[in-house]
Amino acid sequence: MKTTLILTATALMACAATAQDDLAPITLKAPDLNRQAASLMQTFSKRASCTNYSDRALAIQDLSDLLWTANGFNRPENKHRTAGSGMNAQDIDIYVFLPEGAYLYDAEGSVLKPVAKGDFRSQVVTQQPAQGVPQPPVMLILVSETARFTRIQDDAGKLKFAAFDAGLVSQNISIFCAGTGLQTRCRAAVNVPKLKEILKLTDTQVPLLDHPVGYAK
Amino acid sequence: MKTTLILTATALMACAATAQDDLAPITLKAPDLNRQAASLMQTFSKRASCTNYSDRALAIQDLSDLLWTANGFNRPENKHRTAGSGMNAQDIDIYVFLPEGAYLYDAEGSVLKPVAKGDFRSQVVTQQPAQGVPQPPVMLILVSETARFTRIQDDAGKLKFAAFDAGLVSQNISIFCAGTGLQTRCRAAVNVPKLKEILKLTDTQVPLLDHPVGYAK
Repeated sequence: MKTTLILTATALMACAATAQDDLAPITLKAPDLNRQAASLMQTFSKRASCTNYSDRALAIQDLSDLLWTANGFNRPENKHRTAGSGMNAQDIDIYVFLPEGAYLYDAEGSVLKPVAKGDFRSQVVTQQPAQGVPQPPVMLILVSETARFTRIQDDAGKLKFAAFDAGLVSQNISIFCAGTGLQTRCRAAVNVPKLKEILKLTDTQVPLLDHPVGYAK
Repeated sequence: MKTTLILTATALMACAATAQDDLAPITLKAPDLNRQAASLMQTFSKRASCTNYSDRALAIQDLSDLLWTANGFNRPENKHRTAGSGMNAQDIDIYVFLPEGAYLYDAEGSVLKPVAKGDFRSQVVTQQPAQGVPQPPVMLILVSETARFTRIQDDAGKLKFAAFDAGLVSQNISIFCAGTGLQTRCRAAVNVPKLKEILKLTDTQVPLLDHPVGYAK
């Protein structure tokens, strides 16, 4: 009986693995804390909503630093992040859409976990690039797992804190990009039904903001 | 008749001026774009929720740079700011509470406009400093003027964008402080009835987040 159960569990795990059609995880680099960037004040002077990107894929170090500054663990010993969150719920998950598929940013493991194979970049948002501008090489979608707000009972309260927290992460993205010459802008152009379908979101997972990111043309 | 009207208007203006009990405006400095700060990546590594401040007043340059990075005009020629906002509504106003009174940050005029004379720092928030920690020399309150969302009709939609936008400004404050050694944390501990009373807020002005700010002890 015990053997049968173990075999069944193994078979289920194998089944789950093929659900992502063999899309491989992407191991991220440790953040480059010595990377060159504009000074802090110059970074604020450059912060803008930009969408004039090329379709060139981001280098793995740039993608790694982007995600770490967005919502990585900057004090891993205490599991504290670059962005705060209401009651330290750490409710914001970042989904990363690349040409090859959709991934979940796992800050603790420093890895992009495969979620769905395929190019969904144009489908998950309700605004498309201006004429002559390609799809961005990276589309980030900020999703709040509102079930992590265990100390808030009402849905409106959870959504308010989720929106605050999405804003905090979003500005980290905008600031990192401003300081390193990447193009991005904060938008609330998430295609919620499509995201629910592709990412298999539960009812407590709420897509809130999106950030196309790419190198300047 | 014309003369009478002008005299009446002048009298009303004089009356409005005395309503703030002669609290003087505070002229801010231009942002010091060459100020020393941690590098961008080191700044993100230092971002944390801090409240171990002294009661020493902020130098005028530090207060000026803090407010400019929070939500100042970094492209004044286009009236664009260091923080984006939903549909560029620029809905977030920063109220600044100092020991001598409450002020509104006027980003365009680079001035703190007097709103109410008196020390309200402990009254406008619902959380007090830990034992042994003084009132912060500066308490910032982020208030959304939701009436500026002229393209959103429903209140829930306006509040969602207001919360996003408060998060964007809040993270600018946290990032500036992390990079310059100031202590701050983002809180949603605003005392709404007290703020409405002191600041004479209208029903469309919604207090959302607060930031105590001070030098490290």
